[in-house]
Amino acid sequence: MPHLTLGIIEITGGATIDDVAAEAIELAARLDSNIAFTFNGVAIHARPTSTIGGIVTAYNEAVRANRKYAIERTKRSIDICNALDIDLLVLWLAREGTYIREAKDSKLSVERLVEAVNIMLEYDPRIRICIEPKPNEPMDQAYIPTTGHAIGLGLLCADPDRVGVNIESAHVILAGLDPSDEMGYAIAHKKLWTVHLNDQNGLKFDEDKSFGSVDLRRAFNQVRILDKYSYGKNGEYVGLDVKAMRTQKAEVATKHLSNSRTIFLRLLEISRSLDDSAISRMIEERDYEELDLYIMQHLLG
Amino acid sequence: MPHLTLGIIEITGGATIDDVAAEAIELAARLDSNIAFTFNGVAIHARPTSTIGGIVTAYNEAVRANRKYAIERTKRSIDICNALDIDLLVLWLAREGTYIREAKDSKLSVERLVEAVNIMLEYDPRIRICIEPKPNEPMDQAYIPTTGHAIGLGLLCADPDRVGVNIESAHVILAGLDPSDEMGYAIAHKKLWTVHLNDQNGLKFDEDKSFGSVDLRRAFNQVRILDKYSYGKNGEYVGLDVKAMRTQKAEVATKHLSNSRTIFLRLLEISRSLDDSAISRMIEERDYEELDLYIMQHLLG
Amino acid sequence: MPHLTLGIIEITGGATIDDVAAEAIELAARLDSNIAFTFNGVAIHARPTSTIGGIVTAYNEAVRANRKYAIERTKRSIDICNALDIDLLVLWLAREGTYIREAKDSKLSVERLVEAVNIMLEYDPRIRICIEPKPNEPMDQAYIPTTGHAIGLGLLCADPDRVGVNIESAHVILAGLDPSDEMGYAIAHKKLWTVHLNDQNGLKFDEDKSFGSVDLRRAFNQVRILDKYSYGKNGEYVGLDVKAMRTQKAEVATKHLSNSRTIFLRLLEISRSLDDSAISRMIEERDYEELDLYIMQHLLG
Amino acid sequence: MPHLTLGIIEITGGATIDDVAAEAIELAARLDSNIAFTFNGVAIHARPTSTIGGIVTAYNEAVRANRKYAIERTKRSIDICNALDIDLLVLWLAREGTYIREAKDSKLSVERLVEAVNIMLEYDPRIRICIEPKPNEPMDQAYIPTTGHAIGLGLLCADPDRVGVNIESAHVILAGLDPSDEMGYAIAHKKLWTVHLNDQNGLKFDEDKSFGSVDLRRAFNQVRILDKYSYGKNGEYVGLDVKAMRTQKAEVATKHLSNSRTIFLRLLEISRSLDDSAISRMIEERDYEELDLYIMQHLLG
Repeated sequence: MPHLTLGIIEITGGATIDDVAAEAIELAARLDSNIAFTFNGVAIHARPTSTIGGIVTAYNEAVRANRKYAIERTKRSIDICNALDIDLLVLWLAREGTYIREAKDSKLSVERLVEAVNIMLEYDPRIRICIEPKPNEPMDQAYIPTTGHAIGLGLLCADPDRVGVNIESAHVILAGLDPSDEMGYAIAHKKLWTVHLNDQNGLKFDEDKSFGSVDLRRAFNQVRILDKYSYGKNGEYVGLDVKAMRTQKAEVATKHLSNSRTIFLRLLEISRSLDDSAISRMIEERDYEELDLYIMQHLLG
Repeated sequence: MPHLTLGIIEITGGATIDDVAAEAIELAARLDSNIAFTFNGVAIHARPTSTIGGIVTAYNEAVRANRKYAIERTKRSIDICNALDIDLLVLWLAREGTYIREAKDSKLSVERLVEAVNIMLEYDPRIRICIEPKPNEPMDQAYIPTTGHAIGLGLLCADPDRVGVNIESAHVILAGLDPSDEMGYAIAHKKLWTVHLNDQNGLKFDEDKSFGSVDLRRAFNQVRILDKYSYGKNGEYVGLDVKAMRTQKAEVATKHLSNSRTIFLRLLEISRSLDDSAISRMIEERDYEELDLYIMQHLLG
Repeated sequence: MPHLTLGIIEITGGATIDDVAAEAIELAARLDSNIAFTFNGVAIHARPTSTIGGIVTAYNEAVRANRKYAIERTKRSIDICNALDIDLLVLWLAREGTYIREAKDSKLSVERLVEAVNIMLEYDPRIRICIEPKPNEPMDQAYIPTTGHAIGLGLLCADPDRVGVNIESAHVILAGLDPSDEMGYAIAHKKLWTVHLNDQNGLKFDEDKSFGSVDLRRAFNQVRILDKYSYGKNGEYVGLDVKAMRTQKAEVATKHLSNSRTIFLRLLEISRSLDDSAISRMIEERDYEELDLYIMQHLLG
Repeated sequence: MPHLTLGIIEITGGATIDDVAAEAIELAARLDSNIAFTFNGVAIHARPTSTIGGIVTAYNEAVRANRKYAIERTKRSIDICNALDIDLLVLWLAREGTYIREAKDSKLSVERLVEAVNIMLEYDPRIRICIEPKPNEPMDQAYIPTTGHAIGLGLLCADPDRVGVNIESAHVILAGLDPSDEMGYAIAHKKLWTVHLNDQNGLKFDEDKSFGSVDLRRAFNQVRILDKYSYGKNGEYVGLDVKAMRTQKAEVATKHLSNSRTIFLRLLEISRSLDDSAISRMIEERDYEELDLYIMQHLLG
């Protein structure tokens, strides 16, 4: 049975590196030993302190000084990674899009992202970087909207072996794609080093819903492909990137985390209970409607 | 327990009224007596024979002769209804949109649709008309895209009591809305006289997938609201408007119908097994994440 | 030439009615006399003060006390309208959706919205209410997602003649529909008493972009239908509901307002320069590709 | 000034290679010498003759014999390329998706696509292959939905230098992305060897509208990035993949082609008339709303 490591800790704030590291170590001591650390560095980068004159900077801006400033901030994230003995930095390119297409050159933007990642790779020869694609929000359009783009970007970098992806289910759904397909694509490339599971009800604002809350079959297929390729056995991370439901009372607003875990484990159980040879036979005979019913009936118990 | 009448027969073709009626009666004889007839009149209207000079006509065109021709065709549908002793005509306004917005005036279009429905209502004082909304396809944009628009249109007509709606799940999903919400909206208006259940995987071409095939929870909520308001007890129809999966062998390509029925009945069973007072309590306490888990766990069996 | 009244003032805050009224009157004195007042009452309703125990209330909740509280807050909005001599209240039902479908009954929700509007209509026999539809955000799904639903809701109310709609371009686009079509639909119903013009780049978070910023032709068609039906001649309002582009310096971040007005007036000029009889001829001859080019070329100058 | 080569000839049919080649050569003789050939090989592959027992085959099926058959058909396309002296094959993976996610393994699917492309590359050491991504239709979901995925796939192949992309504007829009961004991404990778320009009104069935017909600014940005990087100077192709507007009379239903060309050239003219140093200054000063107006005003003439 594959060992699945649950949990990603996102550490944000404008504190000193030592403050952050201390807080994280203290937190880690309280956690289940099955929960591992990765680091979402961009959170620091996007804080108000990462601005020049009140303006958030990005890696692919026209003004060189702004680009440089954004990269400097990221080096601080890498410092924190080192303080925490973390070798994986998740890089969500939140500010690297535009609100109007003419504000940036899309070819140059990609080249500047490569440049920025190269500087990070050079700054710490041990650090691995997982690019987290997202098509939009907070900006109108991003330049690395999907897993395909993230992997392609990594292959342009100086040390492609240290650039992977983090797939967040909701971000995939925002691009109109299927999370399990994106996972399969990344696994074929050997680039799926971490996932952030959650759910999203179609194309709208980023919802970070509980895993499986919208579409159980879509969640099931994510669990299935991760399990099929023994995800976690080589140090990959399964994170749950979920948010409290608004309009709830505070004291009951943390169940989204345990709910996500409960549903994950239940879907894993269902996935392992399927008769793979029966499925193969249905596929070989192109009896897809039978397969459709088979899956639905197993999901419905 | 509400009695649910399954099945809608769509009769199309350019044959004479008597041909169609004979074929339908013959078909009816072979059907379960639980399956009732409604009539999808637009199918006839949209056939090649409903064109002038090779061009399909619509109710809301600028050229009066074309509008008239489209309405004449529909009178033939009503004739067939009469021959079959059917008093419900489903009107899907397939050709009443445009490919470019400037091709029709959107205010006039609505008024011409009212005019056309009024002529139908006058032509047969017994016929009831259920408008089936759809946002697009085969045209770029339609003027009656949602349940709200269809009900509003009916209220502009000469005899609003004889104009209702047919909600097709997939058409609702194409408008980015939720089928169970649309059903509740129509029930509040007392206008939900027929439904066409199926499924659709997001915003793309019209898929007519097996009921529940994409999203079991979305299907569950449709079953739930229909059952809650005793749908079918007053002669309403539950239709399954599903399509064979392409790339299948012909001999196994009819299971989508029985699959849809099987899933409908299973979801009905799940819905009736829920503890309504527990649900009410969670809602009153705003413990929505607990409710979320409760629903997911019941769906997963 | 139709007279177009530009501008909607949104007044928010938890201040007393007199504070708000005084501030608004002071603001009005500084404005162009061509700019009229309407009132966006829901802004008050949605403030933190409109909560019970830290929870925002809505008109269609299960708990009666919460519904009542939400309506009481709205009565304060009506009081402010009266203090400002405003007879039009824009009602955006921000909190009247859900995050999970099971949290509310969709039929009851609609009925409770009718109930709430009826109480408002009764509270002030002079007030007119314009429902502003939006499909989602801040909640996952709303019960009045489109113009069709808003008009249908109004027709269920006790005094339908005092319930109209406010169409916001971006909200229409979020429902995958076309703003000019929605406007035509509402004009056919004589319900388009106010519009909030802006733009939106597809299905994502609510952007409130400058009018015409995404799609000039879509903006052109909105201007065209408003102008064609002499919008503004009977006291209707044209509002610009636009937002500063993020990542800008503060001192240049107000041009979105004048940009929107500039583009509106330029598109009006283009619309009036078109040869309507030539357009009619192309439509009658179904020479739609010629019409397509004709429109594009006039837009491109 | 970059030289822009307009036109792609799509040759389809189940005829013999010599038939197709003869027809194509005859057609070429009638064409403007500025119009070059590329070859859309998948058209042949997708014909009924590419089936076994009435079933269309795909490169990534579970059954080896079916995969092999699909590849054999493609070798015939390459033969036709050779007969026509064409070295560029556009590969649209129309049948390589699924209708339900469980019908194929997404990791294996990608690996089998690599395998198929490798066989093609080996079969003709001169042929270059441009993968044309599309997220859906005719199937529910495809495995190579975007430019990022297509480029990533190429980089897994045996001879990555001979695998590029063909970007079709409408396919990009179906994935919720921006065509000019995708073009910039591909140019940064040196993989944009051909484009199919057209337009699409949001997420629905594949429309293949006239270039610029929906959104002139989106079209403008495509022209702009192609021109900025001297597209066509190194033998790249600009194709127009547009469709007649339905409901038109046949005799006027070919203007979509010349319309697309006319709009392309007009947008090129506008693009070249812009003051690039003024744009750079606005970007440097983050005066994006000024830039927004500048672009809109130049588009409106």
